[in-house]
Amino acid sequence: MEFTLDQVASLLNGKVEGDGSKVVNRLDKIQEGKPGGISFLSNEKYENFIYETEASGVIVSENFQARKKIKATLIRVKDAYAGFTQILEAYAQFTKNSKSGIEEPSFIDPSSNIGTNFYRGAFSYIGKNNKIGDNVKIYPNVTIGDNVTIGDNCILHPGVKIANDVVIGSFCEFHSGAVIGSDGFGFAPLEDGTYKAIPQIGNVIIEDHVSIGANSTVDRATMGSTIIRRGAKIDNQVQIAHNVIIGENTVVAAQAGISGSTEIGKNCVIAGKAGIVGHLKIADKTTIGANTGISKSIVEPGQTLLGYMGFDLKLFLKSYAVFKNLPILQDRLRELEKKQ
Amino acid sequence: MEFTLDQVASLLNGKVEGDGSKVVNRLDKIQEGKPGGISFLSNEKYENFIYETEASGVIVSENFQARKKIKATLIRVKDAYAGFTQILEAYAQFTKNSKSGIEEPSFIDPSSNIGTNFYRGAFSYIGKNNKIGDNVKIYPNVTIGDNVTIGDNCILHPGVKIANDVVIGSFCEFHSGAVIGSDGFGFAPLEDGTYKAIPQIGNVIIEDHVSIGANSTVDRATMGSTIIRRGAKIDNQVQIAHNVIIGENTVVAAQAGISGSTEIGKNCVIAGKAGIVGHLKIADKTTIGANTGISKSIVEPGQTLLGYMGFDLKLFLKSYAVFKNLPILQDRLRELEKKQ
Amino acid sequence: MEFTLDQVASLLNGKVEGDGSKVVNRLDKIQEGKPGGISFLSNEKYENFIYETEASGVIVSENFQARKKIKATLIRVKDAYAGFTQILEAYAQFTKNSKSGIEEPSFIDPSSNIGTNFYRGAFSYIGKNNKIGDNVKIYPNVTIGDNVTIGDNCILHPGVKIANDVVIGSFCEFHSGAVIGSDGFGFAPLEDGTYKAIPQIGNVIIEDHVSIGANSTVDRATMGSTIIRRGAKIDNQVQIAHNVIIGENTVVAAQAGISGSTEIGKNCVIAGKAGIVGHLKIADKTTIGANTGISKSIVEPGQTLLGYMGFDLKLFLKSYAVFKNLPILQDRLRELEKKQ
Repeated sequence: MEFTLDQVASLLNGKVEGDGSKVVNRLDKIQEGKPGGISFLSNEKYENFIYETEASGVIVSENFQARKKIKATLIRVKDAYAGFTQILEAYAQFTKNSKSGIEEPSFIDPSSNIGTNFYRGAFSYIGKNNKIGDNVKIYPNVTIGDNVTIGDNCILHPGVKIANDVVIGSFCEFHSGAVIGSDGFGFAPLEDGTYKAIPQIGNVIIEDHVSIGANSTVDRATMGSTIIRRGAKIDNQVQIAHNVIIGENTVVAAQAGISGSTEIGKNCVIAGKAGIVGHLKIADKTTIGANTGISKSIVEPGQTLLGYMGFDLKLFLKSYAVFKNLPILQDRLRELEKKQ
Repeated sequence: MEFTLDQVASLLNGKVEGDGSKVVNRLDKIQEGKPGGISFLSNEKYENFIYETEASGVIVSENFQARKKIKATLIRVKDAYAGFTQILEAYAQFTKNSKSGIEEPSFIDPSSNIGTNFYRGAFSYIGKNNKIGDNVKIYPNVTIGDNVTIGDNCILHPGVKIANDVVIGSFCEFHSGAVIGSDGFGFAPLEDGTYKAIPQIGNVIIEDHVSIGANSTVDRATMGSTIIRRGAKIDNQVQIAHNVIIGENTVVAAQAGISGSTEIGKNCVIAGKAGIVGHLKIADKTTIGANTGISKSIVEPGQTLLGYMGFDLKLFLKSYAVFKNLPILQDRLRELEKKQ
Repeated sequence: MEFTLDQVASLLNGKVEGDGSKVVNRLDKIQEGKPGGISFLSNEKYENFIYETEASGVIVSENFQARKKIKATLIRVKDAYAGFTQILEAYAQFTKNSKSGIEEPSFIDPSSNIGTNFYRGAFSYIGKNNKIGDNVKIYPNVTIGDNVTIGDNCILHPGVKIANDVVIGSFCEFHSGAVIGSDGFGFAPLEDGTYKAIPQIGNVIIEDHVSIGANSTVDRATMGSTIIRRGAKIDNQVQIAHNVIIGENTVVAAQAGISGSTEIGKNCVIAGKAGIVGHLKIADKTTIGANTGISKSIVEPGQTLLGYMGFDLKLFLKSYAVFKNLPILQDRLRELEKKQ
């Protein structure tokens, strides 16, 4: 994908200052600009870099006034950041939608339907009785089981596995290696110390605009459904157990884990490596800090928790400050005891 | 899979009350019952739901006495829960065993043997000199290396990877994306600060009735074997390092990690996100709490441990209660010091 | 692979004592030696095992003097450990390089180049405009996107996924299920509580001699590059977020996670389950203990940190020792207060 700076300016309704015939094929940070790249300057803190950058072009705002000579061609637009974002999205859109058609060999059972304008990569597998919408991209080595529903405009990156009976909305994205609908971890202890598997016959429902990160796992419900609601964003290597419900627009960062039957509210933020035990309810707008453990339901919305057994962020930080001083505290206590 | 309620009653030796010709194709929780589903009522706490459920049928115990009118057809059996479990298992059995035969293209080296009644999904790969038993299901995009042994009645879900030399017993299940037999993490530091890989030439042995969760990893031994003993159940995203031994009927929950050469006893329970350092021995029937770190061997069987550097559960909870009060404790100490 | 002990001795310039015609096909630990295996005795602590081992052959040092009768054939070499390592490497080399050629069906776009002496396993996928060096092994069910560069002598184990634009050096190894170049986790919050994906258009650069463990994930940069420098060794299930830089010869153990834009120095050791928040700089030669959380940059090189919010190892251990005594400390404080 190569464009002249004149073409970029035309896309953005911008004005070129300098050589508009230079060709760019890359977006660069201004401090890392190299020939063939286009950057932007929006934050004043980065102004010094514009005098040194080797980027071929830089997008600047209308009212930017240079204090020194600039080697790069400038493209002046109303708002430099918005302009750059526009290119960023055009670029990403172009890249993501570049695949289409069928690569062979790929496998689709004749009982399954797929809409128009799809991509089915080589070695992708689509089992029986699936209903797949329009504009869906199924990358190589993806496996989709039986009786799966997938809405429009979804992207399944290489190696994603969708198990039987999963229901997926529209505009969802599954990153490489994600597993949706694996069996919940349910084993009944028997008297002789062995375990018997409890059949996991529920499914997973994923609503619209959900993103699931690379190598994350979402288990099917024992009965009923594990549900990820509209707009939730799940990072890499997250574990979501059977019968969990993740609320609308809730964000779960990498390596977090949510145990069985827990229900997370709307617009929560769960930071990396956090762990939540099973059968809890977490109120809307709760923020759970990194590596925080939650073992009780959170009833009041809008709290921020931190710690091994998470409690209020500020109180935790105070306790941890004293924890670091504990040996000194102990010495002071001994001194007092001696004086008695 | 559709049945009439009369057919279900016949399977369970039950008695129908109401319309037995209604068709069901789904198992529902009673509080989420919808037409076309069959539920059960066993726990009295849920009795109110039976008067409101929209499930087509509900399995109840012989001695259940309705206090109000019920819309659903009832199936009376000796024990409602046992009856429901029977259907659950029949349902799961039916689903899991529905695949058979060979889907093309799939790959098997002519030097490998596979027993009778198997399923080999499209894009599954079986390398050289493998011995695979009867009733084995190998789902799409599974890769099996060379010199692998797999017993009877095993299930390898989509995208599972079994490396060379792995030995697997019977009735084992591997969930999607699990990796068995990847190289152990062994690097010898050299004088110039670089590292040299130590060849990992051991294997992995997995005994009968073992379950390994989605995207879990079990490394091969440096020499000898990493061993997972009979009946152990491993959840999703668990890491088991080289030369580890997991004892019989030990359960390891999601995102736990066990470092190299550690030996876990029988009938232990290791909760989610727990971490155990290398070269330890953990006694039988040890329970290790969620996100607990273990850095010393556990000699006495039957203990329960919790905490960042895990110790006795009750003592940990007491210490953590004081931890939450540390700022107040510190203030009290200051007060005392002033009075001296 | 079978050899006589005479052949092994010849390889090592060693001297046979006993039956050199015995055939071996396995390397065993001396305490687990079985017929058909060859072991070594280097550490005196293990001497007793040589009198009991059932291994067919044992490599010993020139000056080893047996105190009892030994059943196994001995091979005397200058340094037993070095001799054994030599066999270990020969064995591993032999195993790893045994695959070559093309297995069908596999997929390579005609616009991609691959060097000489390669292995392309069945169901492996190579997209457009890739440049792949010599002696590269691409195992079954690997997916490589578009515009990827891979140097010489790399190994991609089954099910590895390399996304578009990734640049990989020489002598790199990617274990099963690793995902390189998945989208960074970047979402801009909108006023209505929903999130909008920020296009992730950067790439991943992996320098020479890097190893990435099974099911680990390395996200592409938002812009610019996520970089893993020469000689870094990454274990299983590690998460490396967008725009992270891992320094030369840094080792990251299993289930550790490094958040976006953090820069780790050279020759660091990051233990299992450690978590580092985003936008930090970690000095060279820093050691971060297991399950340690790091929320501030580390400026001084060579420190060792431990703890939930990691600080100096020794100070942490002292604080934790007092933490275990907190209930007693609290009682002592109460006693003092009563006496006032």
